[in-house]
Amino acid sequence: MPLDLGAKGSCQIGGNVSTNAGGLRLLRYGSLHGSVLGLEVVLPDGTILDQLTTLRKDNTGYDLKQLFIGAEGTLGIITGVSILTPPAPQASNNVILALPRFENVLPLYKTVKRQLSEILSAFEFIDRTAYDLAVKHGQGRALSEEDVEGAECFVLVETSGGRREHDEEKLNNLLESLLEADEPLINTGVMAQNPAQFSSLWALREGVTEAVSKEGKAYKYDISVPLSTFKECVDLTRERLRSKGLLNEAQVKAVIGYGHVGDGNLHLNVIAKAYTPEIQDALEPFVYELVASHRGSVSAEHGIGAMKTHALHYSKDETSIAWMKKIKAIFDPNGIMNPGKVLE
Amino acid sequence: MPLDLGAKGSCQIGGNVSTNAGGLRLLRYGSLHGSVLGLEVVLPDGTILDQLTTLRKDNTGYDLKQLFIGAEGTLGIITGVSILTPPAPQASNNVILALPRFENVLPLYKTVKRQLSEILSAFEFIDRTAYDLAVKHGQGRALSEEDVEGAECFVLVETSGGRREHDEEKLNNLLESLLEADEPLINTGVMAQNPAQFSSLWALREGVTEAVSKEGKAYKYDISVPLSTFKECVDLTRERLRSKGLLNEAQVKAVIGYGHVGDGNLHLNVIAKAYTPEIQDALEPFVYELVASHRGSVSAEHGIGAMKTHALHYSKDETSIAWMKKIKAIFDPNGIMNPGKVLE
Repeated sequence: MPLDLGAKGSCQIGGNVSTNAGGLRLLRYGSLHGSVLGLEVVLPDGTILDQLTTLRKDNTGYDLKQLFIGAEGTLGIITGVSILTPPAPQASNNVILALPRFENVLPLYKTVKRQLSEILSAFEFIDRTAYDLAVKHGQGRALSEEDVEGAECFVLVETSGGRREHDEEKLNNLLESLLEADEPLINTGVMAQNPAQFSSLWALREGVTEAVSKEGKAYKYDISVPLSTFKECVDLTRERLRSKGLLNEAQVKAVIGYGHVGDGNLHLNVIAKAYTPEIQDALEPFVYELVASHRGSVSAEHGIGAMKTHALHYSKDETSIAWMKKIKAIFDPNGIMNPGKVLE
Repeated sequence: MPLDLGAKGSCQIGGNVSTNAGGLRLLRYGSLHGSVLGLEVVLPDGTILDQLTTLRKDNTGYDLKQLFIGAEGTLGIITGVSILTPPAPQASNNVILALPRFENVLPLYKTVKRQLSEILSAFEFIDRTAYDLAVKHGQGRALSEEDVEGAECFVLVETSGGRREHDEEKLNNLLESLLEADEPLINTGVMAQNPAQFSSLWALREGVTEAVSKEGKAYKYDISVPLSTFKECVDLTRERLRSKGLLNEAQVKAVIGYGHVGDGNLHLNVIAKAYTPEIQDALEPFVYELVASHRGSVSAEHGIGAMKTHALHYSKDETSIAWMKKIKAIFDPNGIMNPGKVLE
């Protein structure tokens, strides 16, 4: 499957496609708009729209199925999917890199992309606060004190390829060249030596979500912004809460950032003792305006649902929203499909 | 650019996106529906639909831009494109394989995909008639007599990757394992040893189009059908013409098949002395019905244009066409955008 996400144990393919799920390896396998070949959709009036082909190339008119990918069930119900599946990788490996400064993330990404090229399958970012939280709540195996000393943030790099010895050589060469550079972008790097360590490194990243829920009540923002602004978005949000006198153990305990660097997708989480109107008001529309100022997306992959319909205009202009409403009106004139979702 | 096609010297990006161009490396880089990140479109009433984001992930409502990809300018004019560009490969190589039987193409494709995995960038098919035609008209450098003896068809395999020595090792190992198998799928394989040979092997494949135009007047069908039926489609078309008494030097000189195996895309060309109503009637709707019987596409990448509007129903059912018309009607109620194209 060209899709891998935390919910893989419980999600369903119809839901994945309806929400245009992205996940951990979009960087490598691309979006569902590219990998879904065909759909069968039941329209609101009961008609079956049969676009369930398995053709990789088909230029016979408008690609209607695309409208249902990410429409969250508001235009029709997806009842069949054909999807392109790449060859499964023969070997995977990963390494966690500790960076002295956030500013190094972008040059590091460029270097890694150039050196690993087609075998790069994930490039994930964890800021120091998120890392410490994951470790505090027993996610993955902590790096040594020495390895994390002076680290402002971490990057998890994964490779997936067809030949283990080639892939390991590439990853080893990368690590060597990073450590031996005149002005190293990283303090240190820890490479997985076996499957258990591979999982353990991933757990540091994937475990952040669970650590957050153990730590407190979370306000979660799943945004797309330029990579160079990841830290700024986290810092400005923290500052905002501090300026409102909300940053303390009794109210907001932590503001963290982590996510899919390769996709420009930042998970900005604000962890509070409890959900309160004061925190809510401090965060919104502040965060949305911040995202809009970078021409970002207020919902990179989690969708609009019912909770973000009021925030849609921060990422879509009036013309686009008007056209979305026209599309909704012709497919579902009676508004019976998932009412209240996506559009108010 | 995640797109490479014969017309690269003259085509324009707006046209590429409007026609959803596929080309030679779709196998590797996927379709424009996946790689186009944003579009700016001028709608028929002069409104600018600004979906020109550069975000890899953006799940804020319907992905309207997708409608314009492949709409052939019938819904709006594309005036801006943002597109995801992969790292350029550091090394490319190719090999041409001679196969004793067409039946070996599918098992060969599976073997090649498994062994070359992420560095496979093209897998192109040329039947014997197409190969002979290319050679006859001076396209590329012909293989030796010995190499082509007993070959029913040829496959051109290209690799593109980040490390020359790794990629060559993979390609050498593939060739060795193919030649040393107990029941070899190929008679022989010729690997490019330098850039000139690399271009020369490609010219055998890319030059077929030019060879066809030098040989006579061509009826060209650009279809998607299951790979296992490529030969059947060519043979049945040839038989059809023979049964109508049209297969002779004075009428139809050759029926050839070549194309992008990895994408299920067959170029079926019928080369005639002159265009005649008899040949036209023998071919249509025969070819379209043949395609429809395999649930294929009557236009894999060349689009519908004005010439194939009558054939749309062979690849799209009534419901789909009705919905295409509804979409056309809301975007372009006065029918001023590229009239007569896509929909009659």
